[in-house]
Amino acid sequence: MAKKKEKPVILITNDDDITSKGIRSMLEAVSDIAKVVIVAPDKPQSGMGHAITIGSPLRMNQVNLFGDVEAWQTNGTPVDCVKLAVDKILKRKPDLCLSGINHGANHSINVLYSGTMSAAMEAAIEGIPSIGFSLLDYSYDADFTVAKQVVHKIVSAVLGKQIQKHLLLNVNIPKCTPEELKGIRICRQAYAKYDEDFLERIDPHHKKYFWLTGEFKNFDKGRDTDVWALDHKYVSVVPVQFDLTDYTLKKKLEKSKLF
Amino acid sequence: MAKKKEKPVILITNDDDITSKGIRSMLEAVSDIAKVVIVAPDKPQSGMGHAITIGSPLRMNQVNLFGDVEAWQTNGTPVDCVKLAVDKILKRKPDLCLSGINHGANHSINVLYSGTMSAAMEAAIEGIPSIGFSLLDYSYDADFTVAKQVVHKIVSAVLGKQIQKHLLLNVNIPKCTPEELKGIRICRQAYAKYDEDFLERIDPHHKKYFWLTGEFKNFDKGRDTDVWALDHKYVSVVPVQFDLTDYTLKKKLEKSKLF
Repeated sequence: MAKKKEKPVILITNDDDITSKGIRSMLEAVSDIAKVVIVAPDKPQSGMGHAITIGSPLRMNQVNLFGDVEAWQTNGTPVDCVKLAVDKILKRKPDLCLSGINHGANHSINVLYSGTMSAAMEAAIEGIPSIGFSLLDYSYDADFTVAKQVVHKIVSAVLGKQIQKHLLLNVNIPKCTPEELKGIRICRQAYAKYDEDFLERIDPHHKKYFWLTGEFKNFDKGRDTDVWALDHKYVSVVPVQFDLTDYTLKKKLEKSKLF
Repeated sequence: MAKKKEKPVILITNDDDITSKGIRSMLEAVSDIAKVVIVAPDKPQSGMGHAITIGSPLRMNQVNLFGDVEAWQTNGTPVDCVKLAVDKILKRKPDLCLSGINHGANHSINVLYSGTMSAAMEAAIEGIPSIGFSLLDYSYDADFTVAKQVVHKIVSAVLGKQIQKHLLLNVNIPKCTPEELKGIRICRQAYAKYDEDFLERIDPHHKKYFWLTGEFKNFDKGRDTDVWALDHKYVSVVPVQFDLTDYTLKKKLEKSKLF
């Protein structure tokens, strides 16, 4: 009798926290094609970027939130979750790491602030192919119908393929119905950022405090960017790297003999 | 009578906190060539990466720690400090942003975890030329003699020059005497990372907790990397970009028709 082929193992994490609808939707989208293990934060960690916990101890507890799917919550950042999963929880390196589905956009400059994408990047650094998924809907009860279809399609296309050792994709999904969705586009990261402001308030003890706020602005006219694709109801897929060297500037500086 | 030329304005921040020896050393290194404003965290923020504070309010207070130099401490992350400085404190865009001098290495993959480098990157995103400086000495009372000379030399070379709109440099300085220092090298980011482990302990209530720990390993044999330069007693200067698009993989994916 032929030995039954083992299902691939997928690690799922996020930054919205383990109770979010987005992480449950991610699980639902891939539970038929893989054995899933979930390791996610026990509280919201949006905007945590690539933060790691070095000054305080980490805790992790197994939780029973997803039927027979192994799941752990930790008091760490999204990047801590990936480190704990790889070093302490998983018996072997997973075949894929999925982060999200995030409630809200992680396109353009958000890739830097996003705990979702930083978790995915941490896995990619470890040589685990990795994808962050984000839906352009910040609401707690967002409709993940389209997003789940996109996750299933992209994960099925990638799983088991040796595309690149440190494969890392930033996938954003527009807020729309299945009929409105135009397709999937491979994009570059737009130069778009927040025109920030701080809301100034006075506390009951007469002291000032500030809330970060701001308006998102796209300074990039390109039609090959993630922002363009999303504005036109396409799913954007940006391949991401963690070598931040600016090679063009490197050459220029070498020539300049500035130092 | 000719109008007196105004000194350039430098914003200094860090991630070790406003009381650290490193930030004071940075100020001492450039106080003769610029008007300095300091905006820095009120507590250590190492490993905070590009984290921003969105779920809680920010505070900032002017402090009298540096004689007649304007200085503010905030309860935010290093990136928050730059945002607050630009939006709430500085009257005009500074000519340069300096982050550090960090107590400890920010070469190779550390660029992602480092609050020092993320603060510098945040300024670069805003179009402020920016440099992160780190000394390969983690001790509280590290000797910044060589580091201060390096800061002075590099800042003098860059200040006032229109090198690039989003100029961002990651400068690491070896722990050595002035005599041992070989020079400055323009480098690329090494593929080197931590072989992580978690130290497992039991608290007084019989519950497990974990401390992140790990051994730094260089997987990159190149002689053009920051790790190589530092190992050979050179200052490493890595030009950094915040467009994380992997253009090689983008082409490959476009050809593959995978999605």
